[in-house]
Amino acid sequence: MALRIVLVETKGALNLGSVARVMKNMGLDRLYLVAPHCSPRDRAALKMAVHGADVLAKAQIVPTLTAALTGCQRAMATCGRIDSSLTTTRPDRGLAWLQEVPEFALVFGAEDRGLSNEELQCCQGVIEIPTDPGYPSLNLAQAVAICCYQWRMLQPETIKPRSIDRATIESLEGLFAHLETVLLDIGYLYPHTALARMQKFRKIGHRSDLSQAEVAMLRGVLSQVQWAIRKTYE
Amino acid sequence: MALRIVLVETKGALNLGSVARVMKNMGLDRLYLVAPHCSPRDRAALKMAVHGADVLAKAQIVPTLTAALTGCQRAMATCGRIDSSLTTTRPDRGLAWLQEVPEFALVFGAEDRGLSNEELQCCQGVIEIPTDPGYPSLNLAQAVAICCYQWRMLQPETIKPRSIDRATIESLEGLFAHLETVLLDIGYLYPHTALARMQKFRKIGHRSDLSQAEVAMLRGVLSQVQWAIRKTYE
Repeated sequence: MALRIVLVETKGALNLGSVARVMKNMGLDRLYLVAPHCSPRDRAALKMAVHGADVLAKAQIVPTLTAALTGCQRAMATCGRIDSSLTTTRPDRGLAWLQEVPEFALVFGAEDRGLSNEELQCCQGVIEIPTDPGYPSLNLAQAVAICCYQWRMLQPETIKPRSIDRATIESLEGLFAHLETVLLDIGYLYPHTALARMQKFRKIGHRSDLSQAEVAMLRGVLSQVQWAIRKTYE
Repeated sequence: MALRIVLVETKGALNLGSVARVMKNMGLDRLYLVAPHCSPRDRAALKMAVHGADVLAKAQIVPTLTAALTGCQRAMATCGRIDSSLTTTRPDRGLAWLQEVPEFALVFGAEDRGLSNEELQCCQGVIEIPTDPGYPSLNLAQAVAICCYQWRMLQPETIKPRSIDRATIESLEGLFAHLETVLLDIGYLYPHTALARMQKFRKIGHRSDLSQAEVAMLRGVLSQVQWAIRKTYE
């Protein structure tokens, strides 16, 4: 993957581990640690990473942010605060812009101080995660999780058809016709009220996003009702 | 806020705390705990919650999922796994659907087992957070963070104009004309090449998304160049 996650001067080993886990969850594995205050080999980090421990093992430790960004065409900083002096970008738009190039990075500051002005200057823009002004400061690993999720939402393989086995319009029409026949048979509908009343059932049917199998099941119920009535009157 | 976060049989107090913090970050405060295996008053939970401790203090503890959903018109379960037997919804679409009603809930399963089939049946749909098939299982608090973020991204107050002080087209035209004059003055442009070459500068200018203040600054530089040339030739 061409997205690097760059963490600047991270203090908490638990955060490192959580970051590695969620990167792995999202299919990312390029972690850069700029002058970290804790080790990616720390036992607490490995425990939090669970099956993302290999992301920690492969993490690149570098002395400066510039070193972490070497080879990238684009880099954006992240913040959860609303600082009126910065022009910020929404996460979805920022990530869409980043991934127009082969190599790009998202930069996250230290837990307590965020990114310095000098570090922000190394980046081409700032992604602002929308937060409540009453408590805007996200946990580092949560901020990474949100950005990695947003990245994944933009990948073509994520966009899969909502449902594959939806009923065709003609099979819905068959269901409605069958239902109308049965409702007339059982005396729920009368010929003069059928049209108006059937519109209400059609509405529910269209809204219910039925699968072919569900239409077949419902028609099975209707057939069974017809069988039961015939038996009663025999 | 009309969104409830419902956690079923949560085991880890640290997770409870992280959930409370990110809820507070996203402006949410209605937390329901179904038969939790840890206490929202646990010291580790309070420590992780930081300024979200009030969300823990207000959390409703209920015995069943049905009790947690009382009064909701819509509820969706969440999962990070791809289970082919379930029809799932993307987080953005699922949350957009949920928030069409006044009261709605997002349900998260226990850390180890997720949600049971019976619990899934209480919900009207399943939101699937897109994850990598190699390691699809998200940390509970990360899953909540992602969903709360996605909810917040859908709120009207989050959609703010990208930039308020962008330069007008006519002020950009003023800049381009000024630049052309200076480039002719300093002998960089010749009248017969000016048009083609200026197109390249116009391209950069349009792409740079300049503010009014930046246009003024650049024109200040151009004026200073004009002043310096005149001085040289005096």
